[in-house]
Amino acid sequence: MSFVQTPVKGMQDFLPEDMALRQHVLGLIRDTYRRYGFSQIGTPAMEHIQNLTGKNGGENEKLIFKVEKRGREFEKSLQKVQQEEGISPEEAGTQLADSALRYDLTVPLCRYYANHKQDLPSPFKALQIGDVFRADRPQKGRFRAFTQCDIDIIGDPSVMAEIELIAATSEALHRIFAEVGVSGFTVHVGDRRILRAMARSAGFAPEEFDEVFIILDKMDKIGLDGVTSELTAGGFSPEKVEKYVGFFRMFQEDPDQDPASFIEKTCADCIEAGAQQEMSEILTTAGGMISSDITLMFDPTLVRGMSYYTGTIFEITIDNYSFSIAGGGRYDRMIGRFCGQDTPACGFSIGFERIVTILRDLGWKESGAGEKKAYLVDRKSASGRIAEVFSLAAKERAEGICVVVQPLKKNAKFQVESLEKEGYTQIRKIYGDTEL
Amino acid sequence: MSFVQTPVKGMQDFLPEDMALRQHVLGLIRDTYRRYGFSQIGTPAMEHIQNLTGKNGGENEKLIFKVEKRGREFEKSLQKVQQEEGISPEEAGTQLADSALRYDLTVPLCRYYANHKQDLPSPFKALQIGDVFRADRPQKGRFRAFTQCDIDIIGDPSVMAEIELIAATSEALHRIFAEVGVSGFTVHVGDRRILRAMARSAGFAPEEFDEVFIILDKMDKIGLDGVTSELTAGGFSPEKVEKYVGFFRMFQEDPDQDPASFIEKTCADCIEAGAQQEMSEILTTAGGMISSDITLMFDPTLVRGMSYYTGTIFEITIDNYSFSIAGGGRYDRMIGRFCGQDTPACGFSIGFERIVTILRDLGWKESGAGEKKAYLVDRKSASGRIAEVFSLAAKERAEGICVVVQPLKKNAKFQVESLEKEGYTQIRKIYGDTEL
Repeated sequence: MSFVQTPVKGMQDFLPEDMALRQHVLGLIRDTYRRYGFSQIGTPAMEHIQNLTGKNGGENEKLIFKVEKRGREFEKSLQKVQQEEGISPEEAGTQLADSALRYDLTVPLCRYYANHKQDLPSPFKALQIGDVFRADRPQKGRFRAFTQCDIDIIGDPSVMAEIELIAATSEALHRIFAEVGVSGFTVHVGDRRILRAMARSAGFAPEEFDEVFIILDKMDKIGLDGVTSELTAGGFSPEKVEKYVGFFRMFQEDPDQDPASFIEKTCADCIEAGAQQEMSEILTTAGGMISSDITLMFDPTLVRGMSYYTGTIFEITIDNYSFSIAGGGRYDRMIGRFCGQDTPACGFSIGFERIVTILRDLGWKESGAGEKKAYLVDRKSASGRIAEVFSLAAKERAEGICVVVQPLKKNAKFQVESLEKEGYTQIRKIYGDTEL
Repeated sequence: MSFVQTPVKGMQDFLPEDMALRQHVLGLIRDTYRRYGFSQIGTPAMEHIQNLTGKNGGENEKLIFKVEKRGREFEKSLQKVQQEEGISPEEAGTQLADSALRYDLTVPLCRYYANHKQDLPSPFKALQIGDVFRADRPQKGRFRAFTQCDIDIIGDPSVMAEIELIAATSEALHRIFAEVGVSGFTVHVGDRRILRAMARSAGFAPEEFDEVFIILDKMDKIGLDGVTSELTAGGFSPEKVEKYVGFFRMFQEDPDQDPASFIEKTCADCIEAGAQQEMSEILTTAGGMISSDITLMFDPTLVRGMSYYTGTIFEITIDNYSFSIAGGGRYDRMIGRFCGQDTPACGFSIGFERIVTILRDLGWKESGAGEKKAYLVDRKSASGRIAEVFSLAAKERAEGICVVVQPLKKNAKFQVESLEKEGYTQIRKIYGDTEL
């Protein structure tokens, strides 16, 4: 087999200018979250396969990259798979693997917290920056390996967690986009408890909720009429569907109404205690903290794909773009699956790849990279002077200046142009008689 | 299957204090290499399996984590593997995989350069920081997933590349270890061309070199007598072995001798033109650039495991430790395997995990993390004042201060102690009547 030059399908190589942008954005994210008291932690890119196929990941579980067992373990599993008739390829694949690449940072965080909780403060404010992997159909802006930046607060059951997460994430995005003159964001806040109460109030049974929510989640693509058709096509009675869709129509007609009055009109009888008050407190308090060019709104249409959410859910959209750039929510029962004891948890994840794609498309340029100097040494006339040049370079580097020392090439013109393109402003050719 | 709390065997979770150390060291490395004009690039953790099983990786190829094909592709390969009698498990594993986790950053760099060379300057100075994966036997300080920091200069055939790499790597290590008061390093410089010339001069045939070098590479563990026994046991004639070992005995008796006289006495007839002059130039020039507490020495016993090295090889050892903390060399023929055109290349890799292990063992502590404040809000008496507290926090965060706002817990004493342990120096409890 011959070598392949391109990266694995759906994955990215980063040129120096891509990497400069990524590092710059990560720097802003780290600095913002540090001020909010989040501590960066790290988890391996690989996880035990049973942790990733345990129904925490929803649709993402279909997209996992499985890593083969090795040596004798692989041999044994291979024999078993070869002998077992009628084993599905899916099951055979899992049998032959003992680990897989993580598809998000939330499952590893829950495992991590369960494993280390005796060494961690409570509440614990975690920042994770890491690559995740999904064998998704590649498309523009969607990759099979991508960086996620998550903040999570573990051990705080109160809305103070939600408020901190919204404020911190909004501020990080505000700082990132301010540099390219983009400022219009909307933070959508929903709640799984309100979502369920509305479905119950419309007459759906709890076992129907998942199907209903999957259809509702398509609203931004298919509209309310599309949701109506799909629910009806799904065999739900027109009465239920009409009542349910009516709630959202009412919301769309007056999207600025406060959650208390909306809940009063739709699902007051069915809602869990506290949900409405918490939503109001989040909107009021977080609304007072975030920058005035960020809109914070109650959004009862918000679903979020993952079924592990138990309460508040959030999403941030950016004006003039059709996709969200951050999302998250409260998942109070997921850590319990790892350690047997339910632990309140709430997280917000930034869509890092989408953000850097937008910034790049808007022409972001590195600034303040500092002075850059190049010495091009003529190896014929100045070969005896290399030590002298390097010594000068060392002095300048000690001052923080970026200095390169290279042999002067035959095609000096091209060499100089290429350095200028890289941002080198002082380029000197060194010959035997050049004064330094 | 139930969930597993611990990380995958041989892999690491990083607590906040581990991560702070790692980020700090990476910051020093990035800043040092930036001054030398290295640009950070990025490659995916996964590679095409044929790139990793193409004999570039030596022993490391046996340690690769293979990633299964998916869907129809996996199904087809599974059928083939099930039908093909006598297929080895090794071969079956490769058939069922289309990609694998990279075991180093050099193979991905060569693929990357071949893929992007039209967009890159020449010479190209690359910095890569990334995780690599090897299914090695886990042991103290050796992991199955670990971070590598490599600098490489591609397109410079002259020793100026070697000199820059030695100076930059030495300076990075010097800065990192200065903080814990450690300063004694030795940079060992060898050359594959000298190594081959010595073997040829002793009478070994080129096809015997690999075996001879594998034995020689164990010298730091088994000593010169061990090397003698193993070579003899390998069936090589006592004359050859005695002559060969004699070269190294002579070196050990006078390790400070200059390379010119050593080569003169051992292999002057067999050596490629230029090798000796280049070694001398590297030692003289780089020796003048590096800090006075770093020793730079010619070391003809240096082998370096990878067979892809073509010329200079380096390794850095730290006094009082038995292992190297950096290594690299020139590999002028590896990029050619990806793009069909040989391209000079030389790299130096820092043993990041070993360095952070040493620093942690020496009690490295984060300093200059800045002011850290905590507000603990009594949810009963001060629930109406949350907005006020958050607004104060926002003001302080805008000044760069790290501030956390949390509900005051019942066990306030433990909560305060835990925050103090995290470095919070100003901790205030907020009740209904507390003045802000």
